[in-house]
Amino acid sequence: MGPGPSDVSPRVLNAMARSTVGHLDPGFIGLMDETKELLQYAFKTNNALTMPVSAPGSAGMEAAFVNLIEPGDTVIVCINGVFGMRMRENVVRSGATAVVIEDEWGTQTDLNKLEEALKAHPEAKIVAFVHAETSTGVRNDAEKMCALARQYDCLTIVDAVTSLGGIELAVDDWQIDAIYSGSQKCLSCVPGISPVSFSDKALEVIKNRKTPVQSWFLDMNLIVGYWGQGGKRAYHHTAPVNSIYALHESLVMLHEEGLENAWARHARLHDKLVTGLEELGIEMAVDKAYRLPQLNVVRIPEGVDDAEVRGRLLNDYNLEIGAGLGAFAGKVWRIGLMGAACTDKNVDFCLAALKTVLK
Amino acid sequence: MGPGPSDVSPRVLNAMARSTVGHLDPGFIGLMDETKELLQYAFKTNNALTMPVSAPGSAGMEAAFVNLIEPGDTVIVCINGVFGMRMRENVVRSGATAVVIEDEWGTQTDLNKLEEALKAHPEAKIVAFVHAETSTGVRNDAEKMCALARQYDCLTIVDAVTSLGGIELAVDDWQIDAIYSGSQKCLSCVPGISPVSFSDKALEVIKNRKTPVQSWFLDMNLIVGYWGQGGKRAYHHTAPVNSIYALHESLVMLHEEGLENAWARHARLHDKLVTGLEELGIEMAVDKAYRLPQLNVVRIPEGVDDAEVRGRLLNDYNLEIGAGLGAFAGKVWRIGLMGAACTDKNVDFCLAALKTVLK
Repeated sequence: MGPGPSDVSPRVLNAMARSTVGHLDPGFIGLMDETKELLQYAFKTNNALTMPVSAPGSAGMEAAFVNLIEPGDTVIVCINGVFGMRMRENVVRSGATAVVIEDEWGTQTDLNKLEEALKAHPEAKIVAFVHAETSTGVRNDAEKMCALARQYDCLTIVDAVTSLGGIELAVDDWQIDAIYSGSQKCLSCVPGISPVSFSDKALEVIKNRKTPVQSWFLDMNLIVGYWGQGGKRAYHHTAPVNSIYALHESLVMLHEEGLENAWARHARLHDKLVTGLEELGIEMAVDKAYRLPQLNVVRIPEGVDDAEVRGRLLNDYNLEIGAGLGAFAGKVWRIGLMGAACTDKNVDFCLAALKTVLK
Repeated sequence: MGPGPSDVSPRVLNAMARSTVGHLDPGFIGLMDETKELLQYAFKTNNALTMPVSAPGSAGMEAAFVNLIEPGDTVIVCINGVFGMRMRENVVRSGATAVVIEDEWGTQTDLNKLEEALKAHPEAKIVAFVHAETSTGVRNDAEKMCALARQYDCLTIVDAVTSLGGIELAVDDWQIDAIYSGSQKCLSCVPGISPVSFSDKALEVIKNRKTPVQSWFLDMNLIVGYWGQGGKRAYHHTAPVNSIYALHESLVMLHEEGLENAWARHARLHDKLVTGLEELGIEMAVDKAYRLPQLNVVRIPEGVDDAEVRGRLLNDYNLEIGAGLGAFAGKVWRIGLMGAACTDKNVDFCLAALKTVLK
């Protein structure tokens, strides 16, 4: 019950342990096609360029930036936590200028600030932000932020590492241009693979670049030949075959439950957890209006030893909860309720363990 | 029995299906330390910076180039197959000038040409080459090439994707500065993870860069905080925990057999395969002096339909052999004898299947 990787279901682990076939094996192609369709379902998109990057979410992030940015571009980056800061790093390392909007950790990105930045920087090409900030437990208002960006002719890059499968997300309705996620959060798949999706508009931008993408490994112009439409697959790199078995199974499970049902489950168990935490005198660090159900950031009660409590939970209860990162280090815990780990049983267990340890 | 991924042993698949723990879990740290030590054994190195990159071999390649290259550098790239070409792509995309030495597919890199290039380009900082060319079945003379590069004060980047665990390789003795490999060849682990090692000299170069590494995800200055020495692990990205279980198990198996014994097994079964192929009238495409035992590139006999034979082997015998790539497309087959798939049984089976299908 940390901030991820979340507990992986035995179904996913078993799927992953199937015999490895070749990455160009005809039998593997069908699985790739299904994985694409299931990802389109999870992202609520018809984007043709929807696929898993063969590396963790951080590489999915980098794929979005290096493909869309050319040296000299301007990118507005909204920062209210660790992963917004990482976005800025990606912008700078791609040779672009980052215009930064900062909001306090634990609060949402301010739409007025974003609009001011868009007005002040008509040269901006992209707005980048994190949908679900794993470091703070805040949901940014992706729908409104994308609408605003579009009004000023900007493309959008959205970090959905922790949001996909846990809260409402609608790539096509919200007209997101580039989005990346992780396998190890609300999909409850093993870590190491990053679902991404690019709009047709983004794909046009990538196809019409004046400079090559700085990363060969992440160049979508090349990857599309392997993950693109139809039966023909051109070799690019050796896909992580077994991790794709696992991702496929986790997406089948999401589809069986139904995306909206999965969102509702996360919301319901979040409410249950919050009620229990409040009974223990533990306060939430984030306002109810934009709190993430799948990542509950709570203030460490006065006089309580952060590391000792986490150590006892891990050693005595085999229960992991997350430490605070960056500005939140030592001040908060992060309790994940993600995917297969988001169950009544886990909420009850976590509350009972905390109650004993905090006594 | 293609060019990889090779057959993965059930032991490795079972290890991979163990429950996912957190990437910062104290219980995972011990496994990381062991994985590092086992990789040092496999690479024959004491390099402190020895670890798996959390992505396929192509990303391992990119990690070597983007960390060592700064814009404006000159890199000598030796090309005699697909993967040398990919190296050149990496050099150019890292902002450096590539000085290319080309040799014919199926032959070794010519040491005289390399020395001429080193003399003509005193500004060269790095020599890059492929130890075992997976596209042609050629072993380049890594030991001599590294000695030559060092004589002219160049660092070396060596692609050992297909060589690690299959043929002699000695990172410290040969004074290789940066090396990367793949999990899915002679280690017979699942694809998707890339062992790398950097010499102390290379690490100094990386630490003293004037410009940031263009890839955040692959920046060794940051990754060293997670995979570095001691118990303290700073979060960089979420490691592919289950893939590391698998890599660890495959390295334990290599250690159990003994590195030199594994090399000898590949050599012995290669000889057996070649004898059998010659009895079937199938010629090797590469001279005996620099042939790879783990990747047997053979000429497709006159009048034989390439795709039909591979299709029948796959459908009737559940046996994959590889097609030719690039200049070798339609002209050769590539028969892998890698890691756990390098067995007497597989050699016999492959020869029997080919005999029937070619009748």
